Amino acid sequence: MQPPPTQPLVAEVTETSRLEAFSDGVFAIAITLLVLEIRLPSTVDAGKAGTLANALFQLWPVYLAYVTSFLTIAIMWANHHTMFKMIRRTDRSLMLLNAVLLMVITFLNFPTVVVAEYFQKPDAGVAAVFYSGSLLVTGIFFNGLWLYVVRQPHLLEPSITMSNARRVLRQYSVGLVVYAIAMGVAFFSAPASVVMCLLVGVFFALPIRRRAAIVE
Amino acid sequence: MQPPPTQPLVAEVTETSRLEAFSDGVFAIAITLLVLEIRLPSTVDAGKAGTLANALFQLWPVYLAYVTSFLTIAIMWANHHTMFKMIRRTDRSLMLLNAVLLMVITFLNFPTVVVAEYFQKPDAGVAAVFYSGSLLVTGIFFNGLWLYVVRQPHLLEPSITMSNARRVLRQYSVGLVVYAIAMGVAFFSAPASVVMCLLVGVFFALPIRRRAAIVE
Amino acid sequence: MQPPPTQPLVAEVTETSRLEAFSDGVFAIAITLLVLEIRLPSTVDAGKAGTLANALFQLWPVYLAYVTSFLTIAIMWANHHTMFKMIRRTDRSLMLLNAVLLMVITFLNFPTVVVAEYFQKPDAGVAAVFYSGSLLVTGIFFNGLWLYVVRQPHLLEPSITMSNARRVLRQYSVGLVVYAIAMGVAFFSAPASVVMCLLVGVFFALPIRRRAAIVE
Amino acid sequence: MQPPPTQPLVAEVTETSRLEAFSDGVFAIAITLLVLEIRLPSTVDAGKAGTLANALFQLWPVYLAYVTSFLTIAIMWANHHTMFKMIRRTDRSLMLLNAVLLMVITFLNFPTVVVAEYFQKPDAGVAAVFYSGSLLVTGIFFNGLWLYVVRQPHLLEPSITMSNARRVLRQYSVGLVVYAIAMGVAFFSAPASVVMCLLVGVFFALPIRRRAAIVE
Repeated sequence: MQPPPTQPLVAEVTETSRLEAFSDGVFAIAITLLVLEIRLPSTVDAGKAGTLANALFQLWPVYLAYVTSFLTIAIMWANHHTMFKMIRRTDRSLMLLNAVLLMVITFLNFPTVVVAEYFQKPDAGVAAVFYSGSLLVTGIFFNGLWLYVVRQPHLLEPSITMSNARRVLRQYSVGLVVYAIAMGVAFFSAPASVVMCLLVGVFFALPIRRRAAIVE
Repeated sequence: MQPPPTQPLVAEVTETSRLEAFSDGVFAIAITLLVLEIRLPSTVDAGKAGTLANALFQLWPVYLAYVTSFLTIAIMWANHHTMFKMIRRTDRSLMLLNAVLLMVITFLNFPTVVVAEYFQKPDAGVAAVFYSGSLLVTGIFFNGLWLYVVRQPHLLEPSITMSNARRVLRQYSVGLVVYAIAMGVAFFSAPASVVMCLLVGVFFALPIRRRAAIVE
Repeated sequence: MQPPPTQPLVAEVTETSRLEAFSDGVFAIAITLLVLEIRLPSTVDAGKAGTLANALFQLWPVYLAYVTSFLTIAIMWANHHTMFKMIRRTDRSLMLLNAVLLMVITFLNFPTVVVAEYFQKPDAGVAAVFYSGSLLVTGIFFNGLWLYVVRQPHLLEPSITMSNARRVLRQYSVGLVVYAIAMGVAFFSAPASVVMCLLVGVFFALPIRRRAAIVE
Repeated sequence: MQPPPTQPLVAEVTETSRLEAFSDGVFAIAITLLVLEIRLPSTVDAGKAGTLANALFQLWPVYLAYVTSFLTIAIMWANHHTMFKMIRRTDRSLMLLNAVLLMVITFLNFPTVVVAEYFQKPDAGVAAVFYSGSLLVTGIFFNGLWLYVVRQPHLLEPSITMSNARRVLRQYSVGLVVYAIAMGVAFFSAPASVVMCLLVGVFFALPIRRRAAIVE
């Protein structure tokens, strides 16, 4: 109908600042919504004296899942932040990859609820597989986004060398490996599996130097 | 009582930056709240071994609705962003139109819940009509906002020509047409209708050039 | 124990930018959370064909309450924005007044749920009194914040004259008056009361000039 | 496998602006989510005339808990803001400490629900211990973060002297002391305990000078 456009309406490749602000918002909300799932079980009878203290203690698997997911998402936020400081520009594909990454991170709310509820139930193993598996998927999309950027060097800050980019990938891969092991461990021990996921968070909370000393 | 004001207290026409920041916040929250609706059905007996894996698989319509709505809102955010890069200034009417647009986008949470719950129920068709119809209404307000801006060229960036503005409208109309068809399809097949809505998201995830190649 | 501090650690009077950003966040979340309260009643039997369409129509009071509260909070955001463009600096008291204002605005979620649920119930009048009364309280804190600022002219932008400041107050008072009338009307007709509250939103959506033509 | 990196990929010590923006988001969401817990009890029969007004009045412990937690989190936001104006740079440990602080602040949603629900139940004392204890833990992490920064003076703004830094610590300690007393009081009177927690908020709402007059 018309001659094809010779130049796009708006730049196809743009600054990352607004993408980062939007991602920050999603991270902040996803991390805060976790608390909504901490509830007293409906079986607790509020009219009966002496039951509340016990009920609050019995919620410890819920607290453990809350702490693990909160710290994991906080670390993912910090890593996302670090990653985008190395990214100079964004294109439509990167925006889509980032949207999918945010989608799986937001989704973590649900496996958190499931693992907390089933921690002391017969299906605890399945719940822990679901939880660590969801973290593994998140890690895969994290690495996928970085792999995409590394293959489009014009999106990277000029100061980032290929060897630097590969080092980042190697550090992020630690998460993938541990989450995969945690999935296997979940069949034998749900608590051990969740604690392993928590340790990934602790690892990334270390300064980069100490992390490098462990990995390389 | 008083002489009418000769000049307004504050500029009637202002920069769009704060409107964009507020809209970004609403988008980020609307997209993140979707996960709260993913829940194990209350009919699942947590005390019985071997039921969880099956229950998680049975939730696939919920996951499908989650993915479709998440990607749709993410794309709407990206398009809103692109649109406001072409808008230089805002007035009260544009603020109101934008508020109504945000209202229908936020509302999408509810049809998402309905279509997920009824996907395999007798009323699946009605649910899919409600879902695709809500997306159609959102698209209409999206185009309406742009039509308003195009008719007030002083709100547009000077670099945007009328032919450019019309091209944007034509691309956005693709969403309208497909959502309308998806409404019709919903009477025959709810899954086909939802997948069509998902494809609109995929279309807008393409780079502008490829989209233009499809539409024009 | 120690000599009293001769100068404060940090400025007692500071820029408003971060207060505005925080307020914007609370507005964006308060407005988005409204949708979580739109739910199919638990009495609807999903397994029975032909019930969904009717159930969705029966929710119209919920939609009406959603639209009214969404537009009202959107307008309050816009007015808050306009007001803080006239405020140059903030002090602790203004921060506290602003926190209380945000608290009553966030609270509106609850009366919205109540009025939607009781719209066609015997206690509809009480629900509408609660709803319009909550809006009235919000308006009082809105005007209170502005009154405080006007009495501390060093917090105002130098370009704002006292006559300007009073004009703003007069326009905001329209909301107070109509909400108070809506409270009275609620005893006779809940729908009329809610519609009056909606009209306040429409009034403030008008450009300042037209509003002035109505009020002054 | 490789020689250890001689210099980090990205600066280990960075500006605090993005950490503050993320924290602001979490504060804004945590404070707004509180309203979701205000609900009419399921025992209220909506079909029966004359029950709603009474039900709304009976919710006063819920309102009291809402006001207390809302103001407390608002004050914590303001203090966090003041604290980070004195912090020039952030490192990984500070980011982790800040994440843990945000985690306990977000968690406050749950004790708020518990204290509101049990306010007039036999276990009110336990609920109030849980509530004031959670606030105490939050205060401890608040002070812990500040202690960490004070011991790393290169993270502080150069204008902050050690005596200033200690004064801040002394003021924040007021919260710790009162929350600890409120925990003890809770065993005798839940309402008195909650009101004491509310008064901490009022204390920090005072201008710094008046606070200093009380404490020093």
